[in-house]
Amino acid sequence: MPVNPPELSPPLPVAGFRIGTASCGVKSADLRGKRMDLTMIATDVDCRAAGTFTQNRLRAACVDLGEAAIREHGEHIRGIVANSGNANAGTGIREEAWAQMMIDAAAEALGVDSKQVLSASTGVIGTPFPIERIEAGIREAASCNADWRLAAEAIRTTDTFAKWASCKVGEYTITGIAKGSGMIHPNMATMLGFIATDAPLTQAQLQPILKRAVDQSFNSISVDGDTSTNDTVYLLSSGIGLGHAPLADTQAFATALETLCIELAQMIVRDGEGVSKFVTIHIRGARTEAEARHVGRTIAVSPLVKTAFAGSDANWGRIIAAAGNAGVEFDPDCITLRCNDVIMMENGNLHPDYRDADGMAVFARDEFSITLDLGMGDAHATVWTGDLTHEYITINAEYRT
Amino acid sequence: MPVNPPELSPPLPVAGFRIGTASCGVKSADLRGKRMDLTMIATDVDCRAAGTFTQNRLRAACVDLGEAAIREHGEHIRGIVANSGNANAGTGIREEAWAQMMIDAAAEALGVDSKQVLSASTGVIGTPFPIERIEAGIREAASCNADWRLAAEAIRTTDTFAKWASCKVGEYTITGIAKGSGMIHPNMATMLGFIATDAPLTQAQLQPILKRAVDQSFNSISVDGDTSTNDTVYLLSSGIGLGHAPLADTQAFATALETLCIELAQMIVRDGEGVSKFVTIHIRGARTEAEARHVGRTIAVSPLVKTAFAGSDANWGRIIAAAGNAGVEFDPDCITLRCNDVIMMENGNLHPDYRDADGMAVFARDEFSITLDLGMGDAHATVWTGDLTHEYITINAEYRT
Repeated sequence: MPVNPPELSPPLPVAGFRIGTASCGVKSADLRGKRMDLTMIATDVDCRAAGTFTQNRLRAACVDLGEAAIREHGEHIRGIVANSGNANAGTGIREEAWAQMMIDAAAEALGVDSKQVLSASTGVIGTPFPIERIEAGIREAASCNADWRLAAEAIRTTDTFAKWASCKVGEYTITGIAKGSGMIHPNMATMLGFIATDAPLTQAQLQPILKRAVDQSFNSISVDGDTSTNDTVYLLSSGIGLGHAPLADTQAFATALETLCIELAQMIVRDGEGVSKFVTIHIRGARTEAEARHVGRTIAVSPLVKTAFAGSDANWGRIIAAAGNAGVEFDPDCITLRCNDVIMMENGNLHPDYRDADGMAVFARDEFSITLDLGMGDAHATVWTGDLTHEYITINAEYRT
Repeated sequence: MPVNPPELSPPLPVAGFRIGTASCGVKSADLRGKRMDLTMIATDVDCRAAGTFTQNRLRAACVDLGEAAIREHGEHIRGIVANSGNANAGTGIREEAWAQMMIDAAAEALGVDSKQVLSASTGVIGTPFPIERIEAGIREAASCNADWRLAAEAIRTTDTFAKWASCKVGEYTITGIAKGSGMIHPNMATMLGFIATDAPLTQAQLQPILKRAVDQSFNSISVDGDTSTNDTVYLLSSGIGLGHAPLADTQAFATALETLCIELAQMIVRDGEGVSKFVTIHIRGARTEAEARHVGRTIAVSPLVKTAFAGSDANWGRIIAAAGNAGVEFDPDCITLRCNDVIMMENGNLHPDYRDADGMAVFARDEFSITLDLGMGDAHATVWTGDLTHEYITINAEYRT
């Protein structure tokens, strides 16, 4: 059961983008026609594209191919093809060929060059890729007229709800979809996000804007601390909204994109495997934003912290002990810790007014925040995470994902 | 239920060492007299001492005091006093004073200088330290005639069995005790180990020998990836075995100590919170031993790997994905993976003879090994870990530890 999933308004169409979906039976031929597992995002014009990719050493071939395509043809992208049910990772000598065949099939179906197509795969690792069923699905998807909601449905794996978000920047539109619920950790975790806009930006503008937005959102969430082989976020700009009128305010676009990515990232945490609590961790008073985020992430992945969340136990010693494991320099005598507005520790000392019952009342909620001030500087970061529950064990020990 | 705990022979006494224990009611006054929670290891002569300490930034005051004592008075140590039930960590302005009061009480009871006494505390973090009850317990322990088995009993927290090991190096003796079952991770995790020997070694010899043994043992195990604020291993040498005859072979001592530390460390994993499987992870073909150990540790803490162990699911894609997260350079096309003698992947390819049923049969056992060859060099390391089970969640979510 997700934690307070938002009620989503219908996603806004984006000028220049068409969507197709199909049910190929990627995971098993028996599922063909029963569950959508292929998404095609086709564009009417050459798009500028940016991407961020997993930091896992064992990257799937589709990630390598996508990064190369953006580097070499990033101003002429014509589509994204993505499947769920099989990650085509750890599949050995045939992995790259399979990934290329998927791209080739999409390019042929769209009537564009293979170099103009990006791809993504998510699902089980180390299982042969059913390329014939996927090729058939691509032909089907290319002639289908779907929408962003269906696209979000088709990239789900263990997600319990489809994730999308839309916003307007002036007259321009941004719409994004995302998936991910396990193996979620900063630096791109089995997590896919595809974002489209009709706002006109150059490729040189897109990449740093996307990087910043991803750092503040998808790279600031954690479900279980594992980082996947396939994580990818793509941002495509068709630039044809308003008949190519220039974008007046790039900063407004960047801010809107960051907000949209945070919405999607929070949905992923709310839908995290076995998550029953949604916890916001604010780190303040750090020397740098990177250190703040690293401390926040270290708290967010601590099994002892996450089980304390699960047990509604305001065992805050585990939080500061986890912070101490981040490898970031701070003075324990300067830290201040609170949950919501209850101060537990101030300037390194037990707060005289703190009562365990007050902390327990906050931890009993299904959403709350932890604020840790390191007392070292002015930098800050926010990380979102869930708890570690019996249901997480059940999902990951009893089913193969 | 621990996984195949060894049947332990009685610990051997060590010339020059006396043991006392007490039941102070550290965790709660109600427990006084019901459960031992204080250990004193007193020595008849000045001992050479070495120590290894937690890398957590938030170190308990007893750790700082112990490190300073070894640095400044490491050839004249006369005892160790340790309590369970309260870590005296994260307790703010009074923490250091409380730690010093505990040492002073032990020194007074033993008739030695405070500078000659080491201390250790383990238990809950962030709770005021009941120093009066501990002082009373110290006086009681000083006049008690216990043994190493009772000392091992008295430092237990959530440990389900007391952990000790003894061996002979020629005519000399080494006896060690250890505790720890949660918050266990390389680099000293709520883990205490006290080792005594009558073999004559200089302090300059002891420290590197202990460091190496700890790296190969306590720093090569993981239960949950959390590192505690209080982890400490002390090694004391009275040097009075055989009437101060010189030690013929320092290397033999080092090897014996390493073996003894590995025995203790493996007991900690077997007794890990909620652990139902004991898994040995061998990393081979690494460029350096440090890289090999880091890859092994990264696999050992992955929640997805540990839940696959728990579910007896040979989902080996999670193992290589975890290895890819270690931040260590390797070529995915060169890796070879096996469990026991079943080869899953060879030189980056799915092994043609691998059948899922073969892997599942290995993962169904309560002890097995994973061997990952990175194909990058000749260095290797071994790490021991357990699985992540419902019982771990129950222990850590439903009880305050």
